[in-house]
Amino acid sequence: MFNNVITPRFLETDALGHINNTVLPTWFEAARDPIFRFFTPDMDVKNWKLMLATFTVNFHAETHYGVDVEIKTYISRIGNSSFDVYQECWQSGHKTASGTTTMVHYCHKEKSSQPLTESILEQMKQHLLQS
Amino acid sequence: MFNNVITPRFLETDALGHINNTVLPTWFEAARDPIFRFFTPDMDVKNWKLMLATFTVNFHAETHYGVDVEIKTYISRIGNSSFDVYQECWQSGHKTASGTTTMVHYCHKEKSSQPLTESILEQMKQHLLQS
Amino acid sequence: MFNNVITPRFLETDALGHINNTVLPTWFEAARDPIFRFFTPDMDVKNWKLMLATFTVNFHAETHYGVDVEIKTYISRIGNSSFDVYQECWQSGHKTASGTTTMVHYCHKEKSSQPLTESILEQMKQHLLQS
Amino acid sequence: MFNNVITPRFLETDALGHINNTVLPTWFEAARDPIFRFFTPDMDVKNWKLMLATFTVNFHAETHYGVDVEIKTYISRIGNSSFDVYQECWQSGHKTASGTTTMVHYCHKEKSSQPLTESILEQMKQHLLQS
Repeated sequence: MFNNVITPRFLETDALGHINNTVLPTWFEAARDPIFRFFTPDMDVKNWKLMLATFTVNFHAETHYGVDVEIKTYISRIGNSSFDVYQECWQSGHKTASGTTTMVHYCHKEKSSQPLTESILEQMKQHLLQS
Repeated sequence: MFNNVITPRFLETDALGHINNTVLPTWFEAARDPIFRFFTPDMDVKNWKLMLATFTVNFHAETHYGVDVEIKTYISRIGNSSFDVYQECWQSGHKTASGTTTMVHYCHKEKSSQPLTESILEQMKQHLLQS
Repeated sequence: MFNNVITPRFLETDALGHINNTVLPTWFEAARDPIFRFFTPDMDVKNWKLMLATFTVNFHAETHYGVDVEIKTYISRIGNSSFDVYQECWQSGHKTASGTTTMVHYCHKEKSSQPLTESILEQMKQHLLQS
Repeated sequence: MFNNVITPRFLETDALGHINNTVLPTWFEAARDPIFRFFTPDMDVKNWKLMLATFTVNFHAETHYGVDVEIKTYISRIGNSSFDVYQECWQSGHKTASGTTTMVHYCHKEKSSQPLTESILEQMKQHLLQS
């Protein structure tokens, strides 16, 4: 599991007084940084090897400004060229949101998916969600 | 069905050269404006009556800067107090993304869900997805 | 002068109930699209020829969700390789914000500024702010 | 001076491959959190006492994804009811952007500016920019 602490920004609130729903995918993307490093260790954006296929976010409670959140990130499925990332957002002891993102190992030049390599699989297995 | 034309913004691209995945939920939220009006006709944010429970976005193709997109918005499920909105993003004749959002008729003061009223149901039925 | 109509998005509000200040630079960037076309007519992001040097935004009144805004965009200064864009945001008959952005004609490959060409100057002069 | 470390997000890049200009105001707002606490120590958004009058951002170099930035925040002017915040964004030993924001001590209910109190002034003086 990866742990990311994120400080909610005032601009991420909306007129209802708490964090807007569209912010969660941005926090979850930010918290996938260590997974991006499996594929592009130097984080060079010209050498990006991932494509996002789908994501789902479930909202369990309001998330507020003024208190840090913790994003927990797990690998929840490993396929041939694709995999799932399961993430939870926690604040003040409550799980406020959770979500799953399906990503594909992808060559942006050849426009084709690529099998996950041994070295990537090994790193993923250290962060598998225990069911 | 509701039709919304949105002009992609340069800042909505990312280093891969096309629209970032986290932008789609923001366009879909923008395109739900006419549905927000079912609940709060004068769009007064102090009188908001909706809560978002979950959303899923599927990515079918890259979305690009420089060409307008059209967001098609349908009601795809009507429950007792909740309902689903199905949306598609089209650009240059291609469906580039689609998604479903579950919303709840909700009283933010009483913190409780509310049944959908007759007048809301009537408006929803005019925008039902034909399966 | 260029006129752009933008529909404020619910997510662009903040907990104060109106549009967050950091949103104005994003609307102003969006409304500079016709100026981007002076430099890159096909809007190909791989052939971008502009760099932003500085921007200032002044806030005159609250901007609200639920009512479209109109962004007015003028060329307010023409230099050798740089120029200024002056913009105003209007809503319900009030100027709610204004700002000036200094941009530079720039070659991202050679990392150097370029003089404004005759054809660009001609287009700019049609949108000059009358003082 | 306040120091804030911010991790650039992939979605904050644009098609030019580095951080989009409109992101800087959002980082600078985030880094003003400790100043917000001078006015609203419990960060309760219903008890907000600040209004933004104007901001300027100057861009000195590209800011990149993959390396943390440090935002340095100073009080650079103290007026009767308003004050200026000067901020710099540093990455890998380079100042990539700087900016000044003018804020006003403001009562959102009475819609009027308020003099800065002794206790606020005292806190501000500990973070004054030395010229």
